[in-house]
Amino acid sequence: MKIDLLIKHAEIFNVYLGRWDLRDLAVLDGRIFHLGDAEGKGFEAETVLDAEGRALVPGLIDIHMHIESSYCGPRQFSRAVLPRGITTVVSEPHEMANVFGPGGIEEMIRLSRGCDMDIFYGIPSSVPSTNESLETSGGRVTPSDATTLAAAWPEVVCVGEMMSYASILRGDTERTRSFLEPLRRIRPLAAVEGHCPDIKDLDLSRVLFERIDSDHCLQSPEGMLQRFELGMFVELQYKSLTPEIVDLLKDGRYRGLYSLVTDDTAPDILERQGHLDGVIRRALELGLPLEEAVIAASWSPAKRIGFRDRGAVSPGKKADFILLKDRSSRFEVHRVYKNGHPVNRMTVRSGTGGEDELQAAPRFLDSLNLPSSLSADMFDLPCDKEEGTVRLRTIVKNSSTTYSSEGRLELPVSKGFIHWENQSCNLLTVTERYRGTGETAKGILTGTYFRGGAVASTHTHDSHNLLIAGDNKRDMECARNWLIAHRGGICVSRGGQITAALALPLGGILSEEPMEKLSGQMICISDAMRALGFEHPNPLMSFTTLTLPVSPEIKISNKGLIRTLTGEILPLIPEEDS
Amino acid sequence: MKIDLLIKHAEIFNVYLGRWDLRDLAVLDGRIFHLGDAEGKGFEAETVLDAEGRALVPGLIDIHMHIESSYCGPRQFSRAVLPRGITTVVSEPHEMANVFGPGGIEEMIRLSRGCDMDIFYGIPSSVPSTNESLETSGGRVTPSDATTLAAAWPEVVCVGEMMSYASILRGDTERTRSFLEPLRRIRPLAAVEGHCPDIKDLDLSRVLFERIDSDHCLQSPEGMLQRFELGMFVELQYKSLTPEIVDLLKDGRYRGLYSLVTDDTAPDILERQGHLDGVIRRALELGLPLEEAVIAASWSPAKRIGFRDRGAVSPGKKADFILLKDRSSRFEVHRVYKNGHPVNRMTVRSGTGGEDELQAAPRFLDSLNLPSSLSADMFDLPCDKEEGTVRLRTIVKNSSTTYSSEGRLELPVSKGFIHWENQSCNLLTVTERYRGTGETAKGILTGTYFRGGAVASTHTHDSHNLLIAGDNKRDMECARNWLIAHRGGICVSRGGQITAALALPLGGILSEEPMEKLSGQMICISDAMRALGFEHPNPLMSFTTLTLPVSPEIKISNKGLIRTLTGEILPLIPEEDS
Repeated sequence: MKIDLLIKHAEIFNVYLGRWDLRDLAVLDGRIFHLGDAEGKGFEAETVLDAEGRALVPGLIDIHMHIESSYCGPRQFSRAVLPRGITTVVSEPHEMANVFGPGGIEEMIRLSRGCDMDIFYGIPSSVPSTNESLETSGGRVTPSDATTLAAAWPEVVCVGEMMSYASILRGDTERTRSFLEPLRRIRPLAAVEGHCPDIKDLDLSRVLFERIDSDHCLQSPEGMLQRFELGMFVELQYKSLTPEIVDLLKDGRYRGLYSLVTDDTAPDILERQGHLDGVIRRALELGLPLEEAVIAASWSPAKRIGFRDRGAVSPGKKADFILLKDRSSRFEVHRVYKNGHPVNRMTVRSGTGGEDELQAAPRFLDSLNLPSSLSADMFDLPCDKEEGTVRLRTIVKNSSTTYSSEGRLELPVSKGFIHWENQSCNLLTVTERYRGTGETAKGILTGTYFRGGAVASTHTHDSHNLLIAGDNKRDMECARNWLIAHRGGICVSRGGQITAALALPLGGILSEEPMEKLSGQMICISDAMRALGFEHPNPLMSFTTLTLPVSPEIKISNKGLIRTLTGEILPLIPEEDS
Repeated sequence: MKIDLLIKHAEIFNVYLGRWDLRDLAVLDGRIFHLGDAEGKGFEAETVLDAEGRALVPGLIDIHMHIESSYCGPRQFSRAVLPRGITTVVSEPHEMANVFGPGGIEEMIRLSRGCDMDIFYGIPSSVPSTNESLETSGGRVTPSDATTLAAAWPEVVCVGEMMSYASILRGDTERTRSFLEPLRRIRPLAAVEGHCPDIKDLDLSRVLFERIDSDHCLQSPEGMLQRFELGMFVELQYKSLTPEIVDLLKDGRYRGLYSLVTDDTAPDILERQGHLDGVIRRALELGLPLEEAVIAASWSPAKRIGFRDRGAVSPGKKADFILLKDRSSRFEVHRVYKNGHPVNRMTVRSGTGGEDELQAAPRFLDSLNLPSSLSADMFDLPCDKEEGTVRLRTIVKNSSTTYSSEGRLELPVSKGFIHWENQSCNLLTVTERYRGTGETAKGILTGTYFRGGAVASTHTHDSHNLLIAGDNKRDMECARNWLIAHRGGICVSRGGQITAALALPLGGILSEEPMEKLSGQMICISDAMRALGFEHPNPLMSFTTLTLPVSPEIKISNKGLIRTLTGEILPLIPEEDS
């Protein structure tokens, strides 16, 4: 019989038996047709490849990640990541949902169709992360939106991470249940992804009792063992792979109870350490046997989600697999096959594509809705006083984590305006960018801040409003204008000139440029931020989370300064002083 | 906090880790709330039970079975089987579908709601087993019916056994694909159950290539290992549990790749050897460790189907579990809990129930549609000849299997009628019973047959038309009339009197009487059949498969004698003789 591809003499890894077998592999119509000895079977193969004993493993499956962390859309993500052997991902489009609501999720799914990689989706469950009184997001995802999406799109295979553990531990299960119960009625077999940082014992039971049964947060050895015992599936990302964790997994006794995932991979990280392939290499370095690592990145995640057509190299499964250079600990990819085709012969292009490329619909490329009246006076800080000084509440930026604390700073007042320029601080503005109100909240940043320039971004967690910080109006205005002209992005201004910039026109958060190009631009931006004296190992992450109202301790949204632990809006001038 | 039930000091089997731990177990709202030490957790339990170190294992899950094999409906099935520890089944309502089509499936689902046991369903994929030219069934299940059912009923969790392996091996995949593809579009994560008797190597690949990836047929050690290697999930029923098979499974290396199932359990078998609990005991007798047997009857089948809420004793799962008398090899059930309630305190009644009982809708209790004109002359065998003899084709019944072969018998002719009464044979009639046509085919049974009486049944595989066999008209008419009066069933007539009978008014195939009562009646029927000289270890099964047109070698339907391997209708008087 005619088949498309016959690979002979491969050392094929059998995930069911956990062993390597020298076998032939027949591929037909994008799926594996036969595994075994091809001799005497009467195969007439269009292509025959002698693997010469090379190791062949299933294509990798990443079930907990967010494509938006790569700053690009599905097509460019697929192009950059598929050649590394990641053939399937389950992405939670948390950021696109914050910008556009269900329409943003649908656009991501639509843009994924026709990608070479198989891209599935988890429904974001925490959009917005707070509420209308604390921030204005572009979109929200209601329980009813979630069921509509699950019913309409076969790509939706699970519920993305439920971030409601804190309210569950307080005994408030209402929001969690009202989100999950309608979904369970129509998709009773769908996984519900969890988010359970540091919790243990009875608290872990409380989250499991809500049938949230995975965790991708940073793991401790003790916490991971407890999760295994209680039936919580553990998703290990790069930072969780410590020598102690890997020591526990080495002998295979916990096989099937965990997988490897990436969660977030920025373009520069992709370049430096890879994607899920990099997580595997990290695990191998720490001594995890290749067999355990492969199972944890193929069969175990497939079983977790319930995929029946992938995660193994056996008849009926998709012909997604990787030929490795050898079985050494390096996990060096020799060739990747997707649907039976070698990836290097596919239309995986590095350019920005031609007319045949699937482009985002125009409305998603034009998401900034700001009033035309925005001008330099948006950076004025009027005051009740005419002259003198005033003591202001400040956000004190930590120079190593994404946390911040509350501080005080005294600034001069003249003719009814606070003089903040060229003082030991930045002015921070957050402008609502979805409804044309231009509603702007202002704050003061101390600790680490920009000197002699400004930075602006529309990729700001989680609502992605327009954030600008700087020590002078001219640079702030320059940065703002560049962003408006480019329909969103991130840029740095110094001396009235843009010194580094990345346009993110897709929702103001993503680019359709190739990821390797983005990587270079992001390194330039980080360098330009450091050149303005902003000290942080990851200046971009540090800056874009100044707005995250679920992270300690004080942040800023378009509604004002927020004490995140209590959800209070705080006045810029503390009441004790006014 | 208030909880419903606290079980202290139980040796709880952890399916994730494959080990026993002495733990406390807290139950709330029918689910497990906490597993661990209850001390200091502030639980206020409505009921506290000291398990005194007894073994506690998950409730059993049978994922390949047919409730109709028990000759009763879901309610009575649940009542008889749940107290044995089977808390969940996935049933394929193949027989009800043959009688009523999709409506019969829906009625089974409806009757299952409110049962104490959780009853899920697989969509029958082979109804009718042949086609309209070979037999008239009451219903059929089209691909479109299947998708409608899957979309409408959350109890539908998989596709029941695809019996199309023979056509797949012939290269004809059309019927299989046209059935499965629409279903996969709406339920991409649903399992497709297989039926792969004896096949191996490339043939196994062919079936797997159609993404049919389980097998519940009789296993050989070699065949089972091949299935494991190729990724086919193996479902081991009682007859597959041989010493050689169990030897392979003892050390746990194939854990997760197989489950224990029952397939068919008649009431007398239930009484003699139990249900899935009996399959477990058989496995233990042959040396399978209790731990492996429990996993194969709980966690592994749950994973196979994709159930996320059961199959383990851990927080969030349904509080379905069994307290065993001890951890010895007997698997003696001490107490069963379903949804956190002890089964012996539930409304599991042995009687036929009161007004509160869920009853089948009237139309399902009145499924016989026969013309009023049926009379004794339906048993006449007219002939072209006026006098002499005629040589007839016969079904030669094998006295040990359900197979039959073709034979010849010469009978006298007088006044244009063949004299079959009180000769060395039975007359066989099969009457279409759904459309009021009364279409009747006639045949002659030799080999083993009834002497001095008749047997009739409307529970006849797979179309469940009215089958009557006897050596005299008077008993055949008596048996027929009893069945019509009772709206279906099985009965034996001798000397013009009914000597044993079982009414099956629900679709003509099921009873709503308690299963223990059916067991006694079935033993009486088998005894009465043997008393008429019908030799067979399972006379009832042997008799009711005389009509099965997919079983070798010659069978009879309302359309006539069928050579089953070729699908030919054969004349009663062979052409060579006419």
